[in-house]
Amino acid sequence: MSAQKPSLPQGTRDFGPAVVARRNYIFGIIRRVFEKFGYAPLETPTLENLSVLTGKYGEEGDQLLFKVLNSGNFLKKQKGDVIKEEVTPDDLLAGPKKVLPKIAEKGLRYDLTVPFARYVVMNRGTLTFPFKRYQIQPVWRADRPQRGRYREFYQCDADVVGTDSLLCEAEIVLMMSEVLNALGLTDYTIKINHRKILSGLYEALRAEGKEADLFVAIDKLDKIGPNGVSEELSAKGYSNDMIKRLFSFLSVKGNFHDKLTELEKMYKDSIGELRDDSGIWFEIVEGQQYAKSGFIRALENARGFDEIKKVYNYLQAFDFTQFDNLEFDPTLARGLSYYTGCIFEIKINNVNMGSVSGGGRYDNLTGAFGLPGVSGVGFSFGVDRLYDCLEELNLFPSDAATTTRCLVANFDVEGERAMLPVLRQLREAGVASELYPEAGKLGRQFKYADAKGIPFVLLQGSEERAQGRFKLKTMSTGQEQTLTLEEVLAVVQA
Amino acid sequence: MSAQKPSLPQGTRDFGPAVVARRNYIFGIIRRVFEKFGYAPLETPTLENLSVLTGKYGEEGDQLLFKVLNSGNFLKKQKGDVIKEEVTPDDLLAGPKKVLPKIAEKGLRYDLTVPFARYVVMNRGTLTFPFKRYQIQPVWRADRPQRGRYREFYQCDADVVGTDSLLCEAEIVLMMSEVLNALGLTDYTIKINHRKILSGLYEALRAEGKEADLFVAIDKLDKIGPNGVSEELSAKGYSNDMIKRLFSFLSVKGNFHDKLTELEKMYKDSIGELRDDSGIWFEIVEGQQYAKSGFIRALENARGFDEIKKVYNYLQAFDFTQFDNLEFDPTLARGLSYYTGCIFEIKINNVNMGSVSGGGRYDNLTGAFGLPGVSGVGFSFGVDRLYDCLEELNLFPSDAATTTRCLVANFDVEGERAMLPVLRQLREAGVASELYPEAGKLGRQFKYADAKGIPFVLLQGSEERAQGRFKLKTMSTGQEQTLTLEEVLAVVQA
Repeated sequence: MSAQKPSLPQGTRDFGPAVVARRNYIFGIIRRVFEKFGYAPLETPTLENLSVLTGKYGEEGDQLLFKVLNSGNFLKKQKGDVIKEEVTPDDLLAGPKKVLPKIAEKGLRYDLTVPFARYVVMNRGTLTFPFKRYQIQPVWRADRPQRGRYREFYQCDADVVGTDSLLCEAEIVLMMSEVLNALGLTDYTIKINHRKILSGLYEALRAEGKEADLFVAIDKLDKIGPNGVSEELSAKGYSNDMIKRLFSFLSVKGNFHDKLTELEKMYKDSIGELRDDSGIWFEIVEGQQYAKSGFIRALENARGFDEIKKVYNYLQAFDFTQFDNLEFDPTLARGLSYYTGCIFEIKINNVNMGSVSGGGRYDNLTGAFGLPGVSGVGFSFGVDRLYDCLEELNLFPSDAATTTRCLVANFDVEGERAMLPVLRQLREAGVASELYPEAGKLGRQFKYADAKGIPFVLLQGSEERAQGRFKLKTMSTGQEQTLTLEEVLAVVQA
Repeated sequence: MSAQKPSLPQGTRDFGPAVVARRNYIFGIIRRVFEKFGYAPLETPTLENLSVLTGKYGEEGDQLLFKVLNSGNFLKKQKGDVIKEEVTPDDLLAGPKKVLPKIAEKGLRYDLTVPFARYVVMNRGTLTFPFKRYQIQPVWRADRPQRGRYREFYQCDADVVGTDSLLCEAEIVLMMSEVLNALGLTDYTIKINHRKILSGLYEALRAEGKEADLFVAIDKLDKIGPNGVSEELSAKGYSNDMIKRLFSFLSVKGNFHDKLTELEKMYKDSIGELRDDSGIWFEIVEGQQYAKSGFIRALENARGFDEIKKVYNYLQAFDFTQFDNLEFDPTLARGLSYYTGCIFEIKINNVNMGSVSGGGRYDNLTGAFGLPGVSGVGFSFGVDRLYDCLEELNLFPSDAATTTRCLVANFDVEGERAMLPVLRQLREAGVASELYPEAGKLGRQFKYADAKGIPFVLLQGSEERAQGRFKLKTMSTGQEQTLTLEEVLAVVQA
């Protein structure tokens, strides 16, 4: 075979030693916090059956699934195979939708939630609930690659299923906050909203049937401003009165608690307007009576406020000290098709970047697999974005990129031999160390230490050897000290 | 969509919390040892271009590659696509070899060596050599699944390229030994051989052209015994004299050093027989003169002995203490198509299982990618086998399976609130802890702790609360102590 110039598939990356070390620094902090809060690790396979994946992420998601070709002769029905009928010329004419099921049964993991749901269903007989799991694994999406968007990337999820306790939501805030503090990302905002407060918004606006437009618009508030949102809603048929009312809702000001109580009062007032003299809840809009069920829904929506308050109270009982980083944001609208309770999102304020984490409560994790009523709450960190934030703010600790701590220089055969027991003692003391494997020019060896980010180089010329001493060079300063081995260990272990 | 019973693809596995914790225990030890010896982590993508993978693992390997279907309409040429011609009915008739290149450009990583070679070639301008990397990632093979053989499994490789120093071989023995000792696997044998000693075997036997048969046969010595090997070689045309000579070679006895020198002497004697009166090296076999080049090769083979001796001397200089676990095994024949120097393999003696680790030196890592002359040495641990050994010998530490250390029991609303600051203090002390998220029956909470392997449960009834004390139950013994929070921390941190 002739030699070829190798390349990487679009949207994939190699992570060299320095980058892996920094990524592991982030993963390590996330993992420690998850475990400290009682979340246990789960790992699921990269390959999942397409029957498990398909239909779970919408039609666009199905398009973005990486499908794996059946092994063997994928065009024919094979002995022992379950499906796999022969692909015919008619299939070719009919197109990929007809051909695909005959040639591919497996796909690559697209997120960590569907595999988690599958795991819960397959192991429901042996799992003890509440089940708290975290999962840090790569996922694959056949998205068009662009800056900051990859086809292979890691997700870090933590979920607890089988309990409705709002303690879990409060602990999510604690975990988010602890991870960010540990990473040194102190200028952050954890935004909270509630699916039922969002529903209340369109109920209170009487915007039923137009809620999708509403959420799409308000989610862009940060980007296009109030005027942009107004224009967009007008175009979608929202009346000026509705828009005015919307902005009065969204303009609630103050701290977490103030905004929450103010908005709750506004909702209540808005519902109050619906009560007629007889005390029956209804209203007349364009000649139609607004059904009593609207009131029931309104009461239901009030639960959103109650729940956020309870989360808040839990945090107070925990002596949580960072309420300044916590914001009630009634415009936060993510995961609307699956979240049913609290919704979370984290923004790093001093970096121009999307959210680095998000999550929420859902009440139907496993319905698609025939197990209804499994509710839970979870969240996820985006490691690539956290990485970029730390890099931009220069927050990686200097030793996060290093593995070897001490390079032992190699003068000549005799010197090499003399240094081997020293190398052993360095390692026995837990110091990651290596001997340059070839005797020769020191310049080259220093260059090696430099390129690899090794902070110390240990040398012993014949003079030092006669004295039983060593020269230790600190690479960052160029400083050289003459030391005993004991002193060397004290310095490099520090 | 109707509910379906989900399943896992053949040959893949979920790893639940207890298993992940135990696997991480193994990975952690391997990683620490690799890093202590100056190996730095590398991670490559799961998806590789098929142009990189194909042809690197032999024809069988090509069959076992998982291929990923191109995204979008994989049957047609698409705008912006590089290859991808339309699949025609004629292609269908021609079969999968004709269709495959039109519908799949990517595959899943099959091992860690080829991606490493690709990485070295793509980054040769910026890497500093010698380049020491380790890589712990899953690989995928479309093998027929069977007991102990999976389609998705982890490899743990460490390689150093860009140096011929035998220090690297010696350090591989040190790393192997340190990992096994740390895992508690003390009854092991590290077998060493050398590719050139294997070549010397067929040279000394004058078995040129039949070396493949020879290696296949002797590699089975453990399984089929000397008689089996004799029969097999007879059937392949080996004369009785050759077989007799072979067994005299393989029957060398004694410790590492004795076996090595004995075999070397035998080889030399065997070559000595070739010298004629004029001092020219040749021999007559069946009327044919054995070429001088045979002598040159014999000298070359002698380098095999020299190199193993040097590795041995390095180990002595390192004060290596486990020579009893090191064996020179002239029958060890693995990786013959790529190893050119030392060859390694580890066997755990008190478990009935294949090798848990292997490796060797190669002199052409990157030739297929147009970069000749990159030599190196590396080895790999098989994590699934190590796991099975530890399990069979009951060597997992009891806390390797646990994440949460202390469960805080939840009596009622008031008690829950009182325990939140306690929970915070436990975590601040680094104790992985969780509060059972719902107030209720203690029996259920104990069962939860039991199922999750949580060693301690902390309780505070109203009586203890009045006294500012806690009950700490040790789950393994059932023992309950009444303690202050400080005392609790001292116990659970231990």
